Amino acid sequence: MLGNFIYSNPTTLYFGDQAQKNITEALKGFGPKVLLTYGGGSIKRNGIYEQVCEALKEAGKQVTEVSGVMPNPTLGKVLEGARIARENNVDLILAVGGGSTIDYAKAVSAAAYYEGDVWQNFWVKQKEPAADQHIIPIGAILTMAGTGSEMNGGSVITNEETKMKIGKVFSQRLMPKFAILNPRYTFSVPRYQMVAGIFDIMSHIMEQYFSGDDDNTSDYLAEGLMRSVIASSRVAIKDPENYEARSNIMWSATWALNTLIGEGKKEDWMVHMIGHAISAYTHATHGMTLAAVSVAYYRHIMPYAVKRFARFAKVVWEIPSQNKSDLQLASEGIDALAAWIKEIGAASEISSLGATPDMLEGIADATIILNGGYKVLDHDEVIKILQESL
Amino acid sequence: MLGNFIYSNPTTLYFGDQAQKNITEALKGFGPKVLLTYGGGSIKRNGIYEQVCEALKEAGKQVTEVSGVMPNPTLGKVLEGARIARENNVDLILAVGGGSTIDYAKAVSAAAYYEGDVWQNFWVKQKEPAADQHIIPIGAILTMAGTGSEMNGGSVITNEETKMKIGKVFSQRLMPKFAILNPRYTFSVPRYQMVAGIFDIMSHIMEQYFSGDDDNTSDYLAEGLMRSVIASSRVAIKDPENYEARSNIMWSATWALNTLIGEGKKEDWMVHMIGHAISAYTHATHGMTLAAVSVAYYRHIMPYAVKRFARFAKVVWEIPSQNKSDLQLASEGIDALAAWIKEIGAASEISSLGATPDMLEGIADATIILNGGYKVLDHDEVIKILQESL
Repeated sequence: MLGNFIYSNPTTLYFGDQAQKNITEALKGFGPKVLLTYGGGSIKRNGIYEQVCEALKEAGKQVTEVSGVMPNPTLGKVLEGARIARENNVDLILAVGGGSTIDYAKAVSAAAYYEGDVWQNFWVKQKEPAADQHIIPIGAILTMAGTGSEMNGGSVITNEETKMKIGKVFSQRLMPKFAILNPRYTFSVPRYQMVAGIFDIMSHIMEQYFSGDDDNTSDYLAEGLMRSVIASSRVAIKDPENYEARSNIMWSATWALNTLIGEGKKEDWMVHMIGHAISAYTHATHGMTLAAVSVAYYRHIMPYAVKRFARFAKVVWEIPSQNKSDLQLASEGIDALAAWIKEIGAASEISSLGATPDMLEGIADATIILNGGYKVLDHDEVIKILQESL
Repeated sequence: MLGNFIYSNPTTLYFGDQAQKNITEALKGFGPKVLLTYGGGSIKRNGIYEQVCEALKEAGKQVTEVSGVMPNPTLGKVLEGARIARENNVDLILAVGGGSTIDYAKAVSAAAYYEGDVWQNFWVKQKEPAADQHIIPIGAILTMAGTGSEMNGGSVITNEETKMKIGKVFSQRLMPKFAILNPRYTFSVPRYQMVAGIFDIMSHIMEQYFSGDDDNTSDYLAEGLMRSVIASSRVAIKDPENYEARSNIMWSATWALNTLIGEGKKEDWMVHMIGHAISAYTHATHGMTLAAVSVAYYRHIMPYAVKRFARFAKVVWEIPSQNKSDLQLASEGIDALAAWIKEIGAASEISSLGATPDMLEGIADATIILNGGYKVLDHDEVIKILQESL
């Protein structure tokens, strides 16, 4: 049953193929100094950078830039951005990019005026900035669908020294004040990244769905979102410039991880924990690490939640249920997931992402164990799942 | 495909069987003078009134009351409330009740400092209060699930003189700042009202779902919500105090009409238009008027959207599709809807709600014709649907 919760979401989303026309308007509520953050420069090749600079100019902003935000943003890069934000006394951080860039903006905002050990306190100990700490507001212009970072408090950062990649969900203060979601901005994302994003979305939904034995509205919404992601993915891999498919993928990504489908229920998140550990060792693309371990993980926990997996098979994958035991149906659902991973071109083996047998102990050690799912894993079980995913 | 839109929702929801513990906290952000509005006094019998007064006292508020808000709130009652709010210079309107009471609070807030013709401008001409007009903030304590008024700008008011019942969707300024959603508060709702609420929720979803030929994430979310409402309704009619079912119904109601599932797509709303006209003539309970005309309405428009109705049958009602034409499947979906209306005890005929053949012309004349659905109705078609619903 739905537990007690508070639902509130402060992010304003501007969605559609004309969404960028709202940037100047969205910028109005903030002071003149903007820190513009982005990644490797693809936004300069596809024209988005120019559109954003135009809007910033129109809004009369003074712009400082931090570019080169990497796909798995590092603590070192966060501290560099925090210093620049502080030294320039910026009024807004405007992140242009995918989830990594927006996650990075949140980390920079939290770190800019923090005097303690940023890594230890925010990521390892999962603390929040004190109520009286100055927080720099964030805006986002999304160029890749996947993480949902545009409408949540999530910020995944990698400590390059300790090889730990940890996610922190900050409070509403660190959530973007606004986000511009133009599905056309995702058209130039390379296929590999598009597919990784699609699996990331699916994984977000599954990791909230596969927990609890109750019958919550949240789970029905999750099923609707999964059906939409699957249908749209099948169109998008054949026709990446299909606006309907890409807009559905973008919108599903936002709702897959802005708290809605997790309200009032348990959540799992072990696939993300294992995936983060793999990324920290291999620098593999986030969504692909999730795809590569999901099938082994779900086969491992399925016996502990046969009914839920049978429902997943029937509702999400439309597998006929007549004359089948729940166990058979459950198993066929995971088969369907495995087949879909191959169909869309996501990773089926962690070896294809650079993981080698000698890394497995280290990856398992770096895997944070959570307890919201159907089975609390021990170290040996993580090793087993990694071996089966090789 | 998803059109351009802005998504933003300012309402904070406190949900759960302990939700009332947040009332004092929620009241803190507002001035000391509160206008407490409620209906016929059932909240005094079930103890909710006492809990709310306790919280108001704890928060140090001075309370003025307007009670007797009727199920279809009238313009006269709105003007009375507006005068009392203005004369007492209130800082917050706290509505305790179902959708009618919350709709009423919005109307009072819009009318309190408005100097023109409230009915003509807000409801007939669908204007907004001017940006510089003072708006009294609203809070809600929900005791009945159905309208979604707790998280939207909707306000349906009846002009008792002209027999017109019109809905107005106000901007975010008029939306509740907070809402307390305790499913247990709905346990004492009489069965008839509970069922009417359930059908109202279902109708909200269907009236957004049955429009457009595209394949939007919004529609997949709508399907998830419909499946949840159907499943929960079947538990709740047998066991009205089943917390899981009642909490799912309450949560579904909120998301059925807070803009999410209508984003970027066309919407229909003709069933509500016909239903409002019936209520204005008969004073019948809102949700029941919708149930009584839905089957005839959907059979009438189904030929214009066979594919969508076939999808409705398959996904929402789980009707096997093998060896069936879309037309047959579509028809069986509406049969399933008709059967469910009987199963939960909603109204199948408008005659059972007090409508008589001599009223039909008047009801058709009072029906506002919209053009977002699959078929724009003319007067004769409304008459035909009403006759088939008798």
